[in-house]
Amino acid sequence: MADFNRTRALFHIPEGVSYLDGNSLGPMPLAAADRAAAVIRDEWGGQLIGGWNSAGWYVQPRRVGDRIARLIGAGPGEVVMGDTLTVKVFQAVSAALKLASARRNVVLSDSGNFPSDLYAVQGLSAMGAELRVVAPEEVEAAIDESIAVLMLTEVDYRTGRRHDMPALTAKAHAAGAIAVWDLAHSAGAVDVDVTSGDADFAVGCSYKYLNGGPGAPAFIWANPRIAAEAQPILQGWMGHDAPFDFVTDYRPAGGIERMRVGTPPVIAMSILDAALDAFDGITMAEIRARSIELSQRFIAGVEAACPGLRLNSPRDPMARGSQVSFCHDEAYAVMQALIARGVVGDYRAPDVLRFGFTPLYLNEGDVDRAVSIISEVLDTGAWDRPEFKQRQAVT
Amino acid sequence: MADFNRTRALFHIPEGVSYLDGNSLGPMPLAAADRAAAVIRDEWGGQLIGGWNSAGWYVQPRRVGDRIARLIGAGPGEVVMGDTLTVKVFQAVSAALKLASARRNVVLSDSGNFPSDLYAVQGLSAMGAELRVVAPEEVEAAIDESIAVLMLTEVDYRTGRRHDMPALTAKAHAAGAIAVWDLAHSAGAVDVDVTSGDADFAVGCSYKYLNGGPGAPAFIWANPRIAAEAQPILQGWMGHDAPFDFVTDYRPAGGIERMRVGTPPVIAMSILDAALDAFDGITMAEIRARSIELSQRFIAGVEAACPGLRLNSPRDPMARGSQVSFCHDEAYAVMQALIARGVVGDYRAPDVLRFGFTPLYLNEGDVDRAVSIISEVLDTGAWDRPEFKQRQAVT
Repeated sequence: MADFNRTRALFHIPEGVSYLDGNSLGPMPLAAADRAAAVIRDEWGGQLIGGWNSAGWYVQPRRVGDRIARLIGAGPGEVVMGDTLTVKVFQAVSAALKLASARRNVVLSDSGNFPSDLYAVQGLSAMGAELRVVAPEEVEAAIDESIAVLMLTEVDYRTGRRHDMPALTAKAHAAGAIAVWDLAHSAGAVDVDVTSGDADFAVGCSYKYLNGGPGAPAFIWANPRIAAEAQPILQGWMGHDAPFDFVTDYRPAGGIERMRVGTPPVIAMSILDAALDAFDGITMAEIRARSIELSQRFIAGVEAACPGLRLNSPRDPMARGSQVSFCHDEAYAVMQALIARGVVGDYRAPDVLRFGFTPLYLNEGDVDRAVSIISEVLDTGAWDRPEFKQRQAVT
Repeated sequence: MADFNRTRALFHIPEGVSYLDGNSLGPMPLAAADRAAAVIRDEWGGQLIGGWNSAGWYVQPRRVGDRIARLIGAGPGEVVMGDTLTVKVFQAVSAALKLASARRNVVLSDSGNFPSDLYAVQGLSAMGAELRVVAPEEVEAAIDESIAVLMLTEVDYRTGRRHDMPALTAKAHAAGAIAVWDLAHSAGAVDVDVTSGDADFAVGCSYKYLNGGPGAPAFIWANPRIAAEAQPILQGWMGHDAPFDFVTDYRPAGGIERMRVGTPPVIAMSILDAALDAFDGITMAEIRARSIELSQRFIAGVEAACPGLRLNSPRDPMARGSQVSFCHDEAYAVMQALIARGVVGDYRAPDVLRFGFTPLYLNEGDVDRAVSIISEVLDTGAWDRPEFKQRQAVT
């Protein structure tokens, strides 16, 4: 059985903080700095260029990918790390467009998708892509034979609404479309299974629920049934079948490694590797069950204590990821007041208070303390101060 | 005057090693591990998501870019960091294709370019790009009015041959083409000046002569005369004019920041930031002069002591970057034998022994020791052993 007291002890949470923003940036694993220092001193410092072989840097993107594969229902050798999530979205969608019928060019997404995914597709208009955006609840009806690619983020970054991956993917396939899933708010948070869901491509980042640190590398998976045909328009030497032959013509590697582009971020990926130790011996089903317990407790507590807040997430936990959001007209100032009191969630425009539930390091005490402080801030109007209304560069 | 004894003391070079491979991976600055640990513990650990504002993570790609700008002749605010070099090549060439005449689609490059740059353009065939590759010495003659984009790496990764950036750029402009320069083997090594050279785009990596560590982020520069028009097909939220408005439609940021894509690699970039301290108080003209001294000494020494080696680099230092290569039929085994004796250069297929000269941490003693050991390995045939002929994954 999962021991969440053990995992909680693996992370540093500053004194006095209830950290409900691990869905934006996971906290620091206590092992992170030592791991980084070891890689820097022993591998880079001691082995220099030889580290590509002797320290395993070259195979690291696939070795770490295997650790994430287990968390998303993929098999060994099916996931590779690198770049950022938007780059991986760009690769997946461009590869999907090439696999789709040549007579189709529409990429269907929804207005709840993270904007960067939409921007990536807008850029692909140069290869003829046409982005079609509908409301999240209209996606299912909008899947028809005009669609080349269905591109969705499974869990909505604002509301936490969770799409039904198996059902939407099945409908996309029946219509002859390719399904690309962004797991940014899924990986390490919910019991996603790309294999039984029969997705075509899945991508995600590793600095949220996977706790890899600010700007940690992204991952990409392609279904084995198409991995050897998939060809993104963004390609580089590390995805070549024989990178060190230095030949002039690109020839993609056999499987998912073709999605590698340039030199991988060795030190950052080592920190992520250390962070993934927290998942050892725990199943995603256990994490998911615990996440639902904590989220339900939070919703019940807030609704009982804070009549001024309106739930902005699905009430049914099966239709939700691992975050809960509430709306308030002065959400920005309210969140700043909460942060000042050590309850760290975040604000999303225009009126969303967002809270993430991450069983690896949160427990009932955090939830109850957060409820109590939210209630106090709203009851006393403590948010109504100029310093809480002053916008910062990154919000 | 530049004090290269001071800079040498800033790096860790293992005992018994003459490191002539800083053109592949720069060595570890002694400050690297402590800087990484400080960013991990104090910023990520202590400030959590707040680090984007309070620790300056959000502006880091431009702040560090400013430090590199000085080394390549660019102005403040003109360079931004992120991704890997191949991604930046892809962005620059795709943006250049859009700026070029709509009637042109040819990207001209040469067979001495690093293959990943060629692969990036081959991927862009999806937007109509046609790659044309000629021999390095034929580039000038091949620039004509059929060319949309001239894409060259200034310093050849195998031979060290240096293209004449101002002359080739001027010819490209006269023909109505856009010039994209890859500075992978230039930045921090030679006195490149993108401003007086009037390049349109310049890109580079930071793990070679800039010593940022394995997989350190890349940089991109656009000439201010076009930066506000340039639009790569790979675009993401961090390059949006208002990323935190989370709007559905992409609207590029005003200047070079539009080349940002996803969440930047904060920890890796902090290590690079620490590494760049070595360049403080030194001009690229000083580094270049010292590089020529060391390279000339090496060539003279090898040619006097090793009649079996053939110089594979231009003899004129003005036509060369900061590396020197020699050919030998058994180059792979010879290099392994050298590495076993602490002379670390590298091998490039099919027959190249490559040595980089990096004044920040190399001196005459390293050069003379390398010459002596190369001579000994060749004279004694010490390379002719099975263990030196066994190929490794990364060569």
